[in-house]
Amino acid sequence: MINKLTIIGLGLMGGSLAKALKAQGAVGQVVATGRRAESLERGLQLGVIDSYTLDMAEAVAGADVVVIATPTLIAEKVMAELAPLMTANMVVTDVASVKGNIQKAAERIFGEVPANFVLGHPIAGSEQSGVDASAVDLFVDHRVILTPLVNTSDSALSLIQSMWETCGAEVVRMDVAEHDAVLAATSHLPHVLAYTLVDALAQNGAAADIFRFAAGGFRDFTRIASSDPTMWHDIALANRDAILQGIDTFSAHLNTVRQAIASGDGDAIFATFDRAKQARDEHFLGQYLARQKKPLSS
Amino acid sequence: MINKLTIIGLGLMGGSLAKALKAQGAVGQVVATGRRAESLERGLQLGVIDSYTLDMAEAVAGADVVVIATPTLIAEKVMAELAPLMTANMVVTDVASVKGNIQKAAERIFGEVPANFVLGHPIAGSEQSGVDASAVDLFVDHRVILTPLVNTSDSALSLIQSMWETCGAEVVRMDVAEHDAVLAATSHLPHVLAYTLVDALAQNGAAADIFRFAAGGFRDFTRIASSDPTMWHDIALANRDAILQGIDTFSAHLNTVRQAIASGDGDAIFATFDRAKQARDEHFLGQYLARQKKPLSS
Repeated sequence: MINKLTIIGLGLMGGSLAKALKAQGAVGQVVATGRRAESLERGLQLGVIDSYTLDMAEAVAGADVVVIATPTLIAEKVMAELAPLMTANMVVTDVASVKGNIQKAAERIFGEVPANFVLGHPIAGSEQSGVDASAVDLFVDHRVILTPLVNTSDSALSLIQSMWETCGAEVVRMDVAEHDAVLAATSHLPHVLAYTLVDALAQNGAAADIFRFAAGGFRDFTRIASSDPTMWHDIALANRDAILQGIDTFSAHLNTVRQAIASGDGDAIFATFDRAKQARDEHFLGQYLARQKKPLSS
Repeated sequence: MINKLTIIGLGLMGGSLAKALKAQGAVGQVVATGRRAESLERGLQLGVIDSYTLDMAEAVAGADVVVIATPTLIAEKVMAELAPLMTANMVVTDVASVKGNIQKAAERIFGEVPANFVLGHPIAGSEQSGVDASAVDLFVDHRVILTPLVNTSDSALSLIQSMWETCGAEVVRMDVAEHDAVLAATSHLPHVLAYTLVDALAQNGAAADIFRFAAGGFRDFTRIASSDPTMWHDIALANRDAILQGIDTFSAHLNTVRQAIASGDGDAIFATFDRAKQARDEHFLGQYLARQKKPLSS
C-alpha cells in the first residue's frame, strides 16, 4: 500500500499508473505536479488524480513514492529540482525509455544515483499520448524493466517492483547498458525506420496516391510513426549511440538484400525472407499462444 | 452472374474470391485446378470449390471467367498453358501483386495481351496464406486495382470489375507502371524493410533477449515479416526496378536522419518525426474515421 504517490509530469504513463493503482485499492492519495496546469486539471477532472499543485515541494512532501514521468530530456531538470526535497523515507523512480542518460544525469546531480532512486522502464505505450489516453490496463501483461545499480536499496527496489506488479505487469531486472541496447533494437530503431519511411513517402510527388492505396500491412508497419514526435526526438538523442549502431547494422543488412534483388539472386532473397519469418513466428506467435490476456483483478 | 468460374492456383486469394461470390449467389459452379492436389482437395473439403481437376483444359472448358491465382513467377508458365485453351467467350484475369512483369510475360506468349485478359490486383491479403486462410470478407472495403491496356475489351473489363464489386471491393483503374510504383512504395518496400530488420536482429547474439522484450509496436511493425517468403521472393524479383528505387530513396533518407542523430541536431530529428506523424495521421486516421466497416450483404 502506497499512502501518497506523487507523479511528476502527468501523461499517458503517469495517468495509467494512477488509474491501475487506484483500481486495485493500492494507493491512498495520488498527487500530480508539472509545468502544465492544463494536463493536471484534466487529470483531476478525469478522476485520475486526487489533487495537483504546480509547487514541487508541496507535491512531494510526505510522499512514499515519487514517479518522474516527464519527457526524457526534461528529467534531468526535474531531478535537480527534486534533489533537495528527497527524504530517506521516499522512493523515487522514473519511466523513461532510455536508462543510461538518466543514470548519467542523476550522477551529475547527486554524485551517485541515490540508493532510494530506482531506474525503471515500463514497456507499454501507444501511439497516443497525454492523460486523456491513460488506461487502467495499460501495463497488464506488459513487462517493466528495472535497472538497479549496485548501491540500490533492496527495500526501494521491492517497493517499486511490487507497485508495477500490482498494475498487472511482469517485472524484469536488467543492466542499464543491456536495457538500452535491447530497446534500441526492438523499439527505438523501428520507430526511426517507420518515421523515416513515412516522411520519405510523404515527400514523394505522388504521396496522395501512395497513401491512398496503402493497405493493412502498411498501416501496421507505420503505426508507430503516429507516436509523439517530441517523445521520440528525446529518445533519439538520449540513446544516440545504441540507435546509431542499430541503424548501421540495419543499413548493412539492407544493402546485402538490395544486392540480392539487383542481381536477381532469388536464393539469397528467399533465405533472408524465410529466416525472418521463422524467427518472428517462433518468437511472437509462440509468445502469443502462450500468453492469455488476463483481466486486471486481484 | 458467372456460370462457371475457374481458379488456377487455389490459395488465399482464389479461395476468398470463391467464398465471397458463392455467399452472394453470384456464381454457378467453381472449379479449381493447379499443380498440388492437396490444396485442391482441401478446397473441396472446405466447400470453397465445387470440383477440381489437375487437367487445365478440362478445368477451363466452358468457363466464363478464369482467374490466375498462382504465385507471380509461375503465372507465365500458366499463361503459356492457358493460351491455346482460351476462347472468345472467356474472360481471363489475374491477382498478381506486380503487373508490369505479367504484361511482359503475356506479350511474350500472345504477342500482345489479349483483349479478354484483364490485368488485376486485389489489395488484400494477410500474413497467412493457403486456402485454409481464405475468408468470405477478405475483399470487403478493400481496393482492387485493374490495369487495363488500350486494347482491353470494355465488356471484359466490366465483367471483372463487377465480379470484384460483388465481393465488396472498391475497384480502381490505373496505369501498369503507376500501379507498380505505388505498390513498391506502400507494400513491397515495407515488406523488404520488415524482413531485413527481423533477419538482422535474429542474427544478433542477443536475439532471444531482443525478441523477448519486444512490445506491441515491434509486433505491428514486423507483422508483415511473417508473410509467405515464397510469394515475397517472387514479388521482389518481379518488381525489381521499382523496389530498388524505393530502397535507394529510403536509404538516402535514413542516412539524413542518421546524420541528424549523430550530430545531435534535435530540430532536424523533430522535423522528420513530426512531418511523418502528420502525414500518417492525416491519411490513415482521416481514412479510418471516414470509412465504416460494411457487412458483406447484397
